[in-house]
Amino acid sequence: MGDIRNILFIMCDQLRADYLGCSGHPTIKTPNIDKLASRGMNFSRAFVQAPVCGSSRMSFYTGRYMFTHGATYNGVPLNIGQPTLGDHMRELGVQTGLIGKTHMAADRANMERLGLDPLSKTGVLASQCGFEPWERDDGLHPDQLTGPNLTYNEYLNGQGYDGDNPWHTAANSGVDENGDLQSGWFLKNAHLPAVVDQKHSETAYMTNRAIDKMTELGNDPWCLHLSYIKPHWPYIAPAPYHNMYSETDVVPVNKSDEERIAPHPVVNAFMQHEESQNFSDEEKRRHVIPAYMGLISEVDDHIGRLVDFLETSGKMEETLIVFTSDHGDYLGDHWLGEKELFHEESVRVPMIIVDPSNAADGTRGKTCDRLVEAIDLVPTFIDGLDGAAKPHLLEGRSLLPILRNHQDLDWRTTAFSEVDYAWRGARLSLDLAPDKTRGYMLRTENWKYVSFDGFGPQLFDLKNDPKELRDLGKSNEHSERIGEFENELNKWIRERKTRYTVTHDAIETKTDTAKKRGIYFGVW
Amino acid sequence: MGDIRNILFIMCDQLRADYLGCSGHPTIKTPNIDKLASRGMNFSRAFVQAPVCGSSRMSFYTGRYMFTHGATYNGVPLNIGQPTLGDHMRELGVQTGLIGKTHMAADRANMERLGLDPLSKTGVLASQCGFEPWERDDGLHPDQLTGPNLTYNEYLNGQGYDGDNPWHTAANSGVDENGDLQSGWFLKNAHLPAVVDQKHSETAYMTNRAIDKMTELGNDPWCLHLSYIKPHWPYIAPAPYHNMYSETDVVPVNKSDEERIAPHPVVNAFMQHEESQNFSDEEKRRHVIPAYMGLISEVDDHIGRLVDFLETSGKMEETLIVFTSDHGDYLGDHWLGEKELFHEESVRVPMIIVDPSNAADGTRGKTCDRLVEAIDLVPTFIDGLDGAAKPHLLEGRSLLPILRNHQDLDWRTTAFSEVDYAWRGARLSLDLAPDKTRGYMLRTENWKYVSFDGFGPQLFDLKNDPKELRDLGKSNEHSERIGEFENELNKWIRERKTRYTVTHDAIETKTDTAKKRGIYFGVW
Repeated sequence: MGDIRNILFIMCDQLRADYLGCSGHPTIKTPNIDKLASRGMNFSRAFVQAPVCGSSRMSFYTGRYMFTHGATYNGVPLNIGQPTLGDHMRELGVQTGLIGKTHMAADRANMERLGLDPLSKTGVLASQCGFEPWERDDGLHPDQLTGPNLTYNEYLNGQGYDGDNPWHTAANSGVDENGDLQSGWFLKNAHLPAVVDQKHSETAYMTNRAIDKMTELGNDPWCLHLSYIKPHWPYIAPAPYHNMYSETDVVPVNKSDEERIAPHPVVNAFMQHEESQNFSDEEKRRHVIPAYMGLISEVDDHIGRLVDFLETSGKMEETLIVFTSDHGDYLGDHWLGEKELFHEESVRVPMIIVDPSNAADGTRGKTCDRLVEAIDLVPTFIDGLDGAAKPHLLEGRSLLPILRNHQDLDWRTTAFSEVDYAWRGARLSLDLAPDKTRGYMLRTENWKYVSFDGFGPQLFDLKNDPKELRDLGKSNEHSERIGEFENELNKWIRERKTRYTVTHDAIETKTDTAKKRGIYFGVW
Repeated sequence: MGDIRNILFIMCDQLRADYLGCSGHPTIKTPNIDKLASRGMNFSRAFVQAPVCGSSRMSFYTGRYMFTHGATYNGVPLNIGQPTLGDHMRELGVQTGLIGKTHMAADRANMERLGLDPLSKTGVLASQCGFEPWERDDGLHPDQLTGPNLTYNEYLNGQGYDGDNPWHTAANSGVDENGDLQSGWFLKNAHLPAVVDQKHSETAYMTNRAIDKMTELGNDPWCLHLSYIKPHWPYIAPAPYHNMYSETDVVPVNKSDEERIAPHPVVNAFMQHEESQNFSDEEKRRHVIPAYMGLISEVDDHIGRLVDFLETSGKMEETLIVFTSDHGDYLGDHWLGEKELFHEESVRVPMIIVDPSNAADGTRGKTCDRLVEAIDLVPTFIDGLDGAAKPHLLEGRSLLPILRNHQDLDWRTTAFSEVDYAWRGARLSLDLAPDKTRGYMLRTENWKYVSFDGFGPQLFDLKNDPKELRDLGKSNEHSERIGEFENELNKWIRERKTRYTVTHDAIETKTDTAKKRGIYFGVW
């Protein structure tokens, strides 16, 4: 193995940490991802900064916590003044581009104010989260049908899938026993094979594009963000993945009746959402999860293709590989569907990192249970390319010292995550204004503390209740611990890096130097 | 009087709230400012968001708290993504420009990243804090000698003041009894008349430029930020202002021996600064303050000229006038010099507002003791021009309901201010890293609470100790109150408006509407 020249930053969408073979799932088949884990390190306690697509990703890409970067929900523009991964990589001479999804909304208002042409070189980067948009595809059509990112639809048309939106009618729909087209948007159709042939699926297509691009880049160093839409809904997979799993492969639901007795008000409001109600129906859950698992195994097959390419092209020895996800999926656990709240099913993600350096040989195949955050990736990439750390801006920490087994490492003891549920029905049922919907999670080795503005806290004893079935937020016995967590939360919020247009070095250089600069104040 | 068409936003630099006749100073002569107060409202509890030039001004101009906008000290670039007063005014069709000082540092790194040409129209605005730079002059030469803003020096050259930097050698120096030029930078020279004739002083020149500009603007609506450098140091005034006051006009110092017994560590570190040591010498203090007072009376004379112009041109009845300052000046009180800390001498500023509307007739000549913050001005201006409120972005509140005497107004009960002393010698003597230097003030009607990260709190009982001579931060008797203030501080920090690229209306419109947008998740 050798020095890091390239970075392959693979992200899935809505992939739970525990739905991989290497992470303990008893029935799912992910041999290629498992093999990646055996070549690198599997971080078993990796947390996203926000368990929802857009906000989580903006933290992955900026290296900053959610309420620091401010893009607190899907569709909230990332402020034009927030530098991203691409900016840091380009400073180090590394071309950085995207194939797939970012869920980034451009800050059109500030771009207009600054006269920044969205079609100029810098305008495109500012619109695409700092990535060169080698292939932007956010999935979720029809939302994207108004944008410029119709390539996958055009590709499908070219392969003989007709219609205006074959993303929907072919890749995300199936045909029922009556020969009628049924949309994968609806859970009841999760058992159908998608119309699309598996070799033309969105996952296959994105992988093709990634391999083509890496080929095209030749020997230039690159950072490729390959960002799969799957296994995110619509939950419908092409053959043979659609029936690779059956109900007998579905693991038991993680919930208890106690959870429905006086639940936390915010959690309770989420429990009333349609997705939670449907996934709480065991029959429906067992109908959908096999498709979810199939989509994961499909991704796994294509990870195998990527690794083959890297090996064949000789790039395996000079490429740092990350495999992760933007958040998990409740799938009915805790009487919830989707994500956004802070149970492990939602906030914990896979995080496998293969560091090609010889220095990392000692940790290959190991699992690491240190508390890792999504914002650690940007500092890791900068560190891996020997760039200067940016502690005035980046709120994460490089993982290289862990990957390279540095001794006596003083690591964080708490991971943080945040939510802003202003856009959800829960806000309406709780009768809250749009700026009263913030929540925070603190996760230590043995405890999880959750604080929603305006409500009491949640507390879980992970040592004795690893499945988070008993909320101790109202336990008098734990009031001291709750107070300590609240103090830690406040301290952390006070340390947000909002002063990020000046480096610490620049401050050191300028401290107490007015006289040297010809400014004499208070001098007799 | 009539509707607001124009805004004349006058700011002094380093002018203490209590150095005006209308605010109770026993000896200073400020008849024109007093007259403004009689025509409008005098806010006796107006606080800046940061008692230091640049950070305070960035709050005045953005309508946002200091650690929200992030420009936490002089020279820290204001992030390109922060909209300012000029942006809001232009949206309402009002030309907005600057004559004088902003202390704004442009965010060159982000401008370069975005390919924004500093000489383009939007590049100039982005570099000048959103103001059209009708005349940028930050004083403080030689710092500014590298910039494009040498107009005042050119003017002085044209008036016969020779040399490379007549700002220094004429406007801010005097000639001693031996005929030698002495710099106004040094406190010992404060008694000398400046070389410059008073009609060519920086204050006179800025006033000329303002009157010229208002004349040129004719009947177009405008917002003019006239931002005087004075009475900020160098403390040296042209004749006749240099000896308008003598030591007998100087009010007694506000300090006690008790303050030097075990002072708060941060305050103690500031007490060791050279400016504090010098101003703590009563002889030196009495030598300098008459010059400071002369500079204020000089400003007052020019305020008279401005009002004459507004009356003569008929603009008085359609112009909202604000007279304020960016922070105060310790002048030796509390054993301190300069500013930055949170005693009233530093953090409280003059705030006189003349609202031409008939609706404000009922409050003319009145003093208002409600807690007012610098960030209230941007919302006030927007409100005055009938613009839409921007509660997702602006952290202040319009003052019009106070000026127009609305009944049953639910007003804030705490004013906040912040400091970041990373650049000061105090940081070095306290041996702190550059990101461990934050401090906060909460000021209610009767109490002041100060919290510096990493140190114990300060508490002042303003009812029984209005001069803030007894710090109760260690008083066991007050521990409950201290706890309450700490909770309030934490709550306030948690509510910072970091999610500001989306409006509350947009959130309301989009809440719980996925299905309407063709996105069906969790639907059976």
